[in-house]
Amino acid sequence: MGYRRFFEASIGQLRNERRYRVFANLERSASEFPRATWRFENGGERQVTIWCSNDYLGMGRHPDSIAAMQETAARMGVGAGGTRNISGTNHPLVQLEAELADLHGKEAALVFTSGWVSNLAAISTIADLLPDCVILSDALNHNSMIEGVRRSKAEKQVWRHNDLAHLEELLIAAGDRPKLVVFESLYSMDGDIADVNAIADLAKKYGAMTYIDEVHAVGMYGPRGAGVCERDGAMDRIDVIEGTLAKGFGALGGYIAGDAAVIDAVRSYAPSFIFTTALPPPVAAAACQAVRTLKARPDLRELHQRQARTTKHALEAAGLPVLDNPSHIVPVMVRDADLCKKASDLLMDRYGIYIQPINYPTVPRGEERLRITPTPLHTDAHIAELVEALVDVWNTLGLPFSTDEKAIAETKDAKCVYPDLKKAAE
Amino acid sequence: MGYRRFFEASIGQLRNERRYRVFANLERSASEFPRATWRFENGGERQVTIWCSNDYLGMGRHPDSIAAMQETAARMGVGAGGTRNISGTNHPLVQLEAELADLHGKEAALVFTSGWVSNLAAISTIADLLPDCVILSDALNHNSMIEGVRRSKAEKQVWRHNDLAHLEELLIAAGDRPKLVVFESLYSMDGDIADVNAIADLAKKYGAMTYIDEVHAVGMYGPRGAGVCERDGAMDRIDVIEGTLAKGFGALGGYIAGDAAVIDAVRSYAPSFIFTTALPPPVAAAACQAVRTLKARPDLRELHQRQARTTKHALEAAGLPVLDNPSHIVPVMVRDADLCKKASDLLMDRYGIYIQPINYPTVPRGEERLRITPTPLHTDAHIAELVEALVDVWNTLGLPFSTDEKAIAETKDAKCVYPDLKKAAE
Repeated sequence: MGYRRFFEASIGQLRNERRYRVFANLERSASEFPRATWRFENGGERQVTIWCSNDYLGMGRHPDSIAAMQETAARMGVGAGGTRNISGTNHPLVQLEAELADLHGKEAALVFTSGWVSNLAAISTIADLLPDCVILSDALNHNSMIEGVRRSKAEKQVWRHNDLAHLEELLIAAGDRPKLVVFESLYSMDGDIADVNAIADLAKKYGAMTYIDEVHAVGMYGPRGAGVCERDGAMDRIDVIEGTLAKGFGALGGYIAGDAAVIDAVRSYAPSFIFTTALPPPVAAAACQAVRTLKARPDLRELHQRQARTTKHALEAAGLPVLDNPSHIVPVMVRDADLCKKASDLLMDRYGIYIQPINYPTVPRGEERLRITPTPLHTDAHIAELVEALVDVWNTLGLPFSTDEKAIAETKDAKCVYPDLKKAAE
Repeated sequence: MGYRRFFEASIGQLRNERRYRVFANLERSASEFPRATWRFENGGERQVTIWCSNDYLGMGRHPDSIAAMQETAARMGVGAGGTRNISGTNHPLVQLEAELADLHGKEAALVFTSGWVSNLAAISTIADLLPDCVILSDALNHNSMIEGVRRSKAEKQVWRHNDLAHLEELLIAAGDRPKLVVFESLYSMDGDIADVNAIADLAKKYGAMTYIDEVHAVGMYGPRGAGVCERDGAMDRIDVIEGTLAKGFGALGGYIAGDAAVIDAVRSYAPSFIFTTALPPPVAAAACQAVRTLKARPDLRELHQRQARTTKHALEAAGLPVLDNPSHIVPVMVRDADLCKKASDLLMDRYGIYIQPINYPTVPRGEERLRITPTPLHTDAHIAELVEALVDVWNTLGLPFSTDEKAIAETKDAKCVYPDLKKAAE
């Protein structure tokens, strides 16, 4: 049987829908962040500026994190040598988990090799240990949370995104059964933030357990960088806080923090934890250093917010369609997969600015965008350069400016006015 | 609602069944491998010898791997900065995938943050892209493969472990439908090896696609360390080869290698790949270096096999119940969860020898064991010390020697003859 054709057909379908993704070959520079070297297929290369990294604070290049990784690698080697159970749990990981429990004011924490796995493992395990549980899940929860919900045997109910009246309806309908409310604090694509205290109020009123994903907030919000729950004084009102070590903390891995019994149960029952090699000691050490660094750096968080605000204001002043939100995420709407890809290519070709197009399935069709993430290391000069480049790209592609509301409505059906992008960009 | 009690009850159940796992706090030493520092709760510490690591060749402490991690961390920072799509794909990862494709003689390779995720992602995605697919899965496949099978929408059939007549029956029964045969080359707990060519023969005869997990073989078998398929001349007869970077290669991460179309389809469709931060450049660089190193080190593979054989022969000569197999894994059978834990504790307390007990669910109940993994860095003196320690532990706990067959049969119901282990070991 010729199996190859099935895979070729599936790839062909993505190409037809303009959803086929090509990964840029990029080498980030620790010394010149946010700069990177972009390598072409033909062997050539070019210096570019990255404007879409989830290393939101540039902690990946922090000298203390790099030193922690290097020193630990020299002392303990590059890998963990096995699962947590079989090969023992490495000392930097023990320290990291203690640091994370302290960060969130919880009894215990557990580290996974990715945030994706931490949500899969924790949500499915917690729900399955609660007899006859109903999971109440926000409609815009991340794929990893959906996978966790799907993997559990529990019944699932989806509440409309950040619609607390709808959540309350579902809580009432669930009655006396155990209920697990799962949601995010900061939704990464629109940059909107949940009302954590209002959700905690409802959970308390109806006796539900709460699970929050703070991956786009840890390191960046709250006095010590514990996230939105810390900022809003709600850390002790949420049962389980899930976070990542790969974004604000600049390294790799995910984690949960909560009551010792909950953490111990996930540790003991989740196959995706039990049967996986532990995080390498040098990675754990780098992440641990980043958590410690950021506990004491409110100034870096303030600068981060300042540069995000400055970027938003400058783009809005230039008439670019920025999606309004209260966070550090700067979505600039294109609302067409093909044009979004073309805008991204043109930014790279003409200006050496790297902003990956965000298309389906990461966002719904018709909500395609450039998702811009200013860091504290993006200077005002970088921002000015970005605005100029985007205005040119918008003009070149005939994309609607925010002042032109009719144009926005028509974008989805518009034809590209710039048919031979590559040639013109030469 | 008091949710805590549900989690406490689930932990209590594990304790009652003597299955509650405590992770030893270990700090491996790169310069004195296989030595490590064991830290106690009370702040004390002790030097121990690790005999159960899956860093089978000690590559985690190889100076070239450490140097690659350190140099890359200095140049590019400690993290990738985002998913492969959003933040671009880092250059060391591009190089690593090229190196892995070359290793296995395949068109392409794709790296994941763990072997667990690579099986989940690849098996479920491949099966779901084949219309009306039947998955034929070996009964002893690893948890990560089972999770991949479960997550797919395909029908599942399980063939008795390494029973090719049963596999053939199921292949015939599946008829003309697309069929995906998933199995391992080297099963990690018993150390037995599948007849890869015979399985490839059957797959060819009945038109099935083949997927093999070589995580306990890559780096260690075959002229260039590509695994059992390479050793047996079957690499081009198996469609997809899955491997790990965390065992023989000593770092972190998993991968698949195969036809470009298959790899591209998994890359494009698997949520567990799409929505996860990429492996940090320093980890990819360390893994890449290990793959390159091992391509040219058949001597290290020979020494590994020699030390595994020496260990087996020495243990057998001392009358210890070693499970016979043709690989580098040395299972010494205890067949009782409680006694297995006690044997492990006693080895640590008396001899500073760390061998984690392997209990349910990693192995079936009644098949509990000490799983010993000699590396090329375990010397003959280490082996002599191990034999002496195990004989003492066997005598102390009244465990049956292999010469005493009646005793083996009775082990499961035997009482522990050593009731106060901790006290006596002081």
